[in-house]
Amino acid sequence: MFENIRIVMVHTSHPGNIGAAARALKTMGLSRLVLVSPQDYPNQKAIWRAAGAADILENVQVVETLGEAIAGCSMVVGASARQRRIPWPAFDSRQGGEVVAKQSQTEQVALIFGREDRGLTNEELQQCNYHIEIPANEEYGVLNVASAVQIICYEVRMALVADKLANDQNKDKEPSGTPSPEALRMPINPVRWDERLATSGEMEHFFNHLETTLTQLDFHEPENPRQLLTRLRRLFMRSRLDHLEINILRGAMTAVQKKIGVKR
Amino acid sequence: MFENIRIVMVHTSHPGNIGAAARALKTMGLSRLVLVSPQDYPNQKAIWRAAGAADILENVQVVETLGEAIAGCSMVVGASARQRRIPWPAFDSRQGGEVVAKQSQTEQVALIFGREDRGLTNEELQQCNYHIEIPANEEYGVLNVASAVQIICYEVRMALVADKLANDQNKDKEPSGTPSPEALRMPINPVRWDERLATSGEMEHFFNHLETTLTQLDFHEPENPRQLLTRLRRLFMRSRLDHLEINILRGAMTAVQKKIGVKR
Repeated sequence: MFENIRIVMVHTSHPGNIGAAARALKTMGLSRLVLVSPQDYPNQKAIWRAAGAADILENVQVVETLGEAIAGCSMVVGASARQRRIPWPAFDSRQGGEVVAKQSQTEQVALIFGREDRGLTNEELQQCNYHIEIPANEEYGVLNVASAVQIICYEVRMALVADKLANDQNKDKEPSGTPSPEALRMPINPVRWDERLATSGEMEHFFNHLETTLTQLDFHEPENPRQLLTRLRRLFMRSRLDHLEINILRGAMTAVQKKIGVKR
Repeated sequence: MFENIRIVMVHTSHPGNIGAAARALKTMGLSRLVLVSPQDYPNQKAIWRAAGAADILENVQVVETLGEAIAGCSMVVGASARQRRIPWPAFDSRQGGEVVAKQSQTEQVALIFGREDRGLTNEELQQCNYHIEIPANEEYGVLNVASAVQIICYEVRMALVADKLANDQNKDKEPSGTPSPEALRMPINPVRWDERLATSGEMEHFFNHLETTLTQLDFHEPENPRQLLTRLRRLFMRSRLDHLEINILRGAMTAVQKKIGVKR
């Protein structure tokens, strides 16, 4: 739903870009713009560039920190121009538009855009569930920030409209309102990942280690298991742990066992 | 082919839009820009807004008439905001990008964009084989002209890249060892999920708790952090933790803290 999606601009330098972004939002049917510590706002240039989207600026929310901007959001997606040292799960703009559209049916979603000169910091990018990348020219892929906002909002709109069409068509077919299980998919591109994925054997060793440690902590009670281990298994299975992540988690558990003086 | 596609801007008023369009072209791998009787060009504002695409402006072609601009083209496509009195064959921006990409393999193609205030005249639109429309907000669909150029060039690029991939794949159909990116996908269906997803605030509390606990375990050494916290953040951000999972993980950390006798 359009109203569950907010566009967040972080430390924007030029007020003209804020106005242009407001216009980009409105042409794509979005309305919620949040500015994190803009350098020069309010400013007449923003109003001028917003053209017929002055109402977006009137309702803009200006906050101090990214944390305030994304408060209440269960999906945070950051625009990223390039691959960082530690690759993060990333969608291209088309996939990202589809995922955001689906998620916004039930959840608050934030789309974050960075500074004109250097985008989002690594720290900001690490507050995101996913990154979204516009597959631009490799030799010069530096989009103006309002242009990036325009393309991402366009993709979100295309997906929202397609979903609505599909839903309307399905309504005629079956009375059931439940969306398809295809709804949300998270791609991990194994080629761009930096570590190989864990094998099933490594996963089982990890789960054994986890069960032992949680029992030694008296957190897991084997005679009263509730759904504890099942829920943790579901979590780590869907996360597609890589080899290094397994080592980190097992290392942390070994540190716990050492501290509490139990046999590993 | 990128080099067979030209972008034509007709009677542009603001030089800033010409610069922004040049940048839009270059970020999408296009290079040929033609200006029909621009009102105020050359102008420093165009160069400023072009940013790293000054070379596009250096090679820009300025002509008097639309006829000169589209000379030699066997496909002419005009950007149109709304359906004209006499309907013309029209594509939406996605279909249009695909058609232009295909046609440009063998033919010269022109994409025409009109004035800021009123687009292309009926006469100009009638010089086009097809119209192309961006499916914008029906209540306010007036895109800035450079933003329209950006979206259309983006769609053309997406189609060109997809065509190239398809062609490359057809060339060597031999079995290759690398898994397809489709192979690894994690579905999260928000509707069928049993717990609500964690909010960004809950995630940050969780990460703080994690950092504190790992430090108390001497597993995380703040003066020698390596990439430990970043890797854990990446893991749990991509997992889309739900509310109950957060409670379980934090409960386990509290159990650790109790056992090792540190302050929580």
